[in-house]
Amino acid sequence: MLLGLFCTSSRSLHSAFVRSFATNVKPAKFSKRVRHRASDFVKAMATSEIEAKLEPLRLDVKTAGDKVRELKATGAPKNDLDRAVFELKALKKKLEDTELALTPKDAFFERAKMEDLLKRRFFYDQSFAIYGGVTGLYDFGPMGCALKANMIDVWRKHFILEEGMLEVECSALTPENVLKASGHVERFIDWMVKDVKTGDCFRADHLIKNHAEALLKDKTTTPALKAELEDILIKLDGYDNNDMDAVIKKYGFKSPITKNDVSEPVSFNLMFPSQIGPTGDAKAFLRPETAQGIFINFKRLYEFNQSKLPFAAAQIGSGFRNEISPRQGLIRVREFTMCEIEHFVDPTDKDHPKFGKIANLELLLYSACDQMDGKPAKRVKVADAVASKIIDNETLAYYMARTNLFLVSVGVDPARLRFRQHMGNEMAHYAKDCWDAEIMTSYGWIECVGHADRSCYDLQQHAKATNVKLVATKPLAQPKKVTQVVPVPNMAVIGKAFKADGKLIKTLLEKLEPSEVTALAEGLKAGGYELSAANGKSFKLTPDMVSVKEEQKTLHVEELVPSVIEPSFGIGRIMYAVLEHSFRQREGDEQRTYFELKPLVAPYKASVLPISVNEKLEPIVTAVRDELSALHLSYRVDESGISIGKRYARTDELGIPFAITIDFESVNAPHTVTLRDLASMQQVRLQVSEVAPTVLALSRGVSTWADVAAKFPLFTASSD
Amino acid sequence: MLLGLFCTSSRSLHSAFVRSFATNVKPAKFSKRVRHRASDFVKAMATSEIEAKLEPLRLDVKTAGDKVRELKATGAPKNDLDRAVFELKALKKKLEDTELALTPKDAFFERAKMEDLLKRRFFYDQSFAIYGGVTGLYDFGPMGCALKANMIDVWRKHFILEEGMLEVECSALTPENVLKASGHVERFIDWMVKDVKTGDCFRADHLIKNHAEALLKDKTTTPALKAELEDILIKLDGYDNNDMDAVIKKYGFKSPITKNDVSEPVSFNLMFPSQIGPTGDAKAFLRPETAQGIFINFKRLYEFNQSKLPFAAAQIGSGFRNEISPRQGLIRVREFTMCEIEHFVDPTDKDHPKFGKIANLELLLYSACDQMDGKPAKRVKVADAVASKIIDNETLAYYMARTNLFLVSVGVDPARLRFRQHMGNEMAHYAKDCWDAEIMTSYGWIECVGHADRSCYDLQQHAKATNVKLVATKPLAQPKKVTQVVPVPNMAVIGKAFKADGKLIKTLLEKLEPSEVTALAEGLKAGGYELSAANGKSFKLTPDMVSVKEEQKTLHVEELVPSVIEPSFGIGRIMYAVLEHSFRQREGDEQRTYFELKPLVAPYKASVLPISVNEKLEPIVTAVRDELSALHLSYRVDESGISIGKRYARTDELGIPFAITIDFESVNAPHTVTLRDLASMQQVRLQVSEVAPTVLALSRGVSTWADVAAKFPLFTASSD
Repeated sequence: MLLGLFCTSSRSLHSAFVRSFATNVKPAKFSKRVRHRASDFVKAMATSEIEAKLEPLRLDVKTAGDKVRELKATGAPKNDLDRAVFELKALKKKLEDTELALTPKDAFFERAKMEDLLKRRFFYDQSFAIYGGVTGLYDFGPMGCALKANMIDVWRKHFILEEGMLEVECSALTPENVLKASGHVERFIDWMVKDVKTGDCFRADHLIKNHAEALLKDKTTTPALKAELEDILIKLDGYDNNDMDAVIKKYGFKSPITKNDVSEPVSFNLMFPSQIGPTGDAKAFLRPETAQGIFINFKRLYEFNQSKLPFAAAQIGSGFRNEISPRQGLIRVREFTMCEIEHFVDPTDKDHPKFGKIANLELLLYSACDQMDGKPAKRVKVADAVASKIIDNETLAYYMARTNLFLVSVGVDPARLRFRQHMGNEMAHYAKDCWDAEIMTSYGWIECVGHADRSCYDLQQHAKATNVKLVATKPLAQPKKVTQVVPVPNMAVIGKAFKADGKLIKTLLEKLEPSEVTALAEGLKAGGYELSAANGKSFKLTPDMVSVKEEQKTLHVEELVPSVIEPSFGIGRIMYAVLEHSFRQREGDEQRTYFELKPLVAPYKASVLPISVNEKLEPIVTAVRDELSALHLSYRVDESGISIGKRYARTDELGIPFAITIDFESVNAPHTVTLRDLASMQQVRLQVSEVAPTVLALSRGVSTWADVAAKFPLFTASSD
Repeated sequence: MLLGLFCTSSRSLHSAFVRSFATNVKPAKFSKRVRHRASDFVKAMATSEIEAKLEPLRLDVKTAGDKVRELKATGAPKNDLDRAVFELKALKKKLEDTELALTPKDAFFERAKMEDLLKRRFFYDQSFAIYGGVTGLYDFGPMGCALKANMIDVWRKHFILEEGMLEVECSALTPENVLKASGHVERFIDWMVKDVKTGDCFRADHLIKNHAEALLKDKTTTPALKAELEDILIKLDGYDNNDMDAVIKKYGFKSPITKNDVSEPVSFNLMFPSQIGPTGDAKAFLRPETAQGIFINFKRLYEFNQSKLPFAAAQIGSGFRNEISPRQGLIRVREFTMCEIEHFVDPTDKDHPKFGKIANLELLLYSACDQMDGKPAKRVKVADAVASKIIDNETLAYYMARTNLFLVSVGVDPARLRFRQHMGNEMAHYAKDCWDAEIMTSYGWIECVGHADRSCYDLQQHAKATNVKLVATKPLAQPKKVTQVVPVPNMAVIGKAFKADGKLIKTLLEKLEPSEVTALAEGLKAGGYELSAANGKSFKLTPDMVSVKEEQKTLHVEELVPSVIEPSFGIGRIMYAVLEHSFRQREGDEQRTYFELKPLVAPYKASVLPISVNEKLEPIVTAVRDELSALHLSYRVDESGISIGKRYARTDELGIPFAITIDFESVNAPHTVTLRDLASMQQVRLQVSEVAPTVLALSRGVSTWADVAAKFPLFTASSD
């Protein structure tokens, strides 16, 4: 994928990504009580007081949106249209910033506290820290690793298994020519400036932003300059290299380290370079996404699928991006796990056979239209969204709905999840429709899953670069008689003229498309035709070497280049959002922080806690362990001598949803233990043989804690 | 890891790997009947006729082995010892080659046929093929991907879950200084020669081998020269760059492409280079193994484990090696998946608490002693192997046994699996004991899992490079009173002299080891002491700034650097071996090839085959699908109109162990279907509701086909 999660525009693959990202990163504020934070947050968005303040801004956006529509309708010059879109986006951003700023502040969610917990319990942490660390690289410890593995496991079952997708695993090392064809070598860039004396590098937009913000805080800055700088900050995301250069020169922005001048913005390709083999001339990159591997394998996959459309292929694997100066933890990293799906479909029929299963699901949609009109996102039934053409087609909508179900099942708060449609200018020229699943975090709305209808762009690009047909065929309803022009080579003459290349020329002639044969015929009439091979060679053909004749043919099938619909998941970002949405502090004891993870994805399903070190308890501990192991339930034993209350706090910190305590009552036959629920801190007492099946049912979501609390006697202890 | 799977020696990390690999790569031959191939193979090894031929060679090896032992015992000069070991290895190789050559030839296993099937059904294939392909890079299609994912899933349950290991996931991009400390920058190399005019690169040992083999085939080569060349081929694996250079010069070996002269062998580092960040000066490599990430995180993991030994950490991930000219399919690749375990243990106590569980298991051990004596591998009980010190300690032996269980559970033929001990010279100087799990394939014995007791080398190296203590503590049986020398800084003077660095100096002084404090005291007496920081700074301390005093202290714990025991799995190699061991041809119809995979790891557990396209069958097909999905069983529906026999052949090719056929009898209530076993081609008839639980039990190994055949009525059809 180029679009989607890490989206693109017609101008610059990366700048759009940067833009959409930067647009969305705003400090978020949540309501007071954790339990009701999300719904309060949404309610707060709708108070009449806030709406009154937002109203004029909404109006500004609508006016600008109408102007864009009008310019489009009247076919105005591109320059005018671009300027209008630019204004529209700046106003949209102002509206969204204000919305976020007006949402009631919440002192409750403290990112620093969560980050402390994540570090202390080794969910994840900076890579190579003992060597000084590398920004943008993270190591996942046992907790983060298991959480991620569980999320991927759910993903694999939800998408690959349930939808019968073809999973592939392709090489991360990718030769340069592949990424030239995909457009990454040319367009996957950021703009950076260099300190003219030391060579230190800075991202141009970051440099401007930091300077402007510093000046805005400076009391000596004049109101007029402040207004200019504010305007720059609003429009910055849309600046190209010339715009940024002009700003840097005008205000004399310097290197923040040395105060030296900086260079003009130069483009920096974000792919990690390497080379394959010993000579150093086989240039390669680490893949920036997994999608290209699927496109390249299209033929094999199509054949594996018994040459039938539609089918989907999926890949789970690492992507690499050499960010200039990554910050913001797991949100922007240099090495990350992606789960990508490429659904290949007949461009004339994008209905989905299982659409009915999700047609009644409601999604929070933030359509391009509503964005242009300054309206908020709306809850819409999927069926209605497709019927009214808000979402382009059933297959795209089907995946959006399935993504919604997946995200909620792993622990994303549904109230903080929306689908934002790309506006016309955000999409590449070939894309038909794009929707990002965005999740609200303390960094603002973060793009976590892209959904793009990429039409047939990718297959066409690779076919063009390799001269290999990447097409599907479908039977014609009626056999079709056609007149075709075909080249007829005179191999004797060709062989004499081109020797060993004769065979290649024959193959090339056979592969010519009808339009090329027509060009050949015309060329020959004019005396000669230049035939080009993929390897760079070309051959001048004269009328004695080849002629063109018309042929009657009956066609039973037709060839088509499939459209690609691509959902693309950034697992690290989703995981970060899940952690934020699961982070809790105990009311009344806010130092006791913990994660209320969904049992389905929790790293450990249960902790096993003997109340004290005593050999009488040991056989029961062993029995509990064996029962849990037999059901493949992950668990953690904490036999340390510290108080049971402290150990509960520890298992809470690890996000372990259930705690099994073996106490002295356990010794009496039939052996019983207590089972404690992390969220409610309730405990029940049950037999040893019952505990593993109960935890299994809870972990799979087959039963809830309420069921368990109703079934077994509650147990009250004062130790928590 | 450096040792183990991709083993090392005291001289060159990689050459040992190359050597052991090359030693083992011999064409293997299997006995006639597929079913009994493995046991026949082993029996064949023991016929008296063969033994008679092997006897003199065994004797040669033993004589050479005895000589090595004698030289070691008498403390002979290193040169003499090295030469003797060199001779021993050459004779050992001759013995092993002869053993393999004498094993009855088997026309049955045809690698080309298997490779055709692997390609045709897209188990895996060359990466970027439409772009011309890159050697040593493979893409896994749906079948290979699922097989690999299932194998890794079994691995994770077998090791990580069952042993309570701490799983981590670390960055693949690794800064240069980390790999300098680990030894890879200096020693992870191959020798290559370059065409002096064109710059084409060749692996030096391959160049010699190819030239020598060509001359041996040449009828004009004199018998004397042939004898010399044969001797070179035998000893080639042990040659260093000077030896190879001498051979190339003596025989005038040239570039095979241009016939130009070639350069002297130059070392080529096998790591893929890259750089992190935009300036290009943060040099990095793609990790050649996952182990270093675990060592670097030792402190975090130790703390996560509540500061207790022993514990094991594990990592599943990609490794990268820039092979000069990879061949042999999945056996030698440039990008591969490894599963590595680092078990940290008190060096004075390597017993394992669960040793009893595997003590009675028999392993096929090929000890260093037996190798020196020219004896074959022996089946030995694990308990006996440890008691007699054949295997150094319980923990190492425990992992070898667990590896054996794992490999057999995923489909490695136990008769073609052995554990070969490294001989003294194969091991790095710091290693205590190493055993490779080797699997016999058509390429010969292939090293697939390394098991190494690496003592405390790795942690010490990283501690030295970073100045960060990587130690564990353990309580002393008796508190110990000690006299320590401690530095007493005079911060007023230090602060005045070094300003902001004062704090750093204080920290550095506090961290000094006792031996360093002694050096400090001596330095101060002589007038001054140079204190160095990790960042390169150093500070000259004078007697007015710091003094040294003696202190009485009671120690309750002692520090220790844990030993590391490392099992390291190459998943691609194991997968290849499993595929070879599972490859079958139907007797009487040898064009019908298939894989008899263990249901536990088979990509699809069942295929669903409606006997013809008919709407009466559809609801039953749907019912079967729903039942299978509900139990998370992967399946593949084949509704193509071709004959059921052809479809059985197709599901056999995909290694699908069970086929569910919906026929016209299925329509009658209660609805029944047939279930077919891939291996025996037997079919039973059972109710729709029974089929998914039956397949689940078979897939988990809870029941066997014999159980199923006994429980349900057999069904006979003529269509297979």
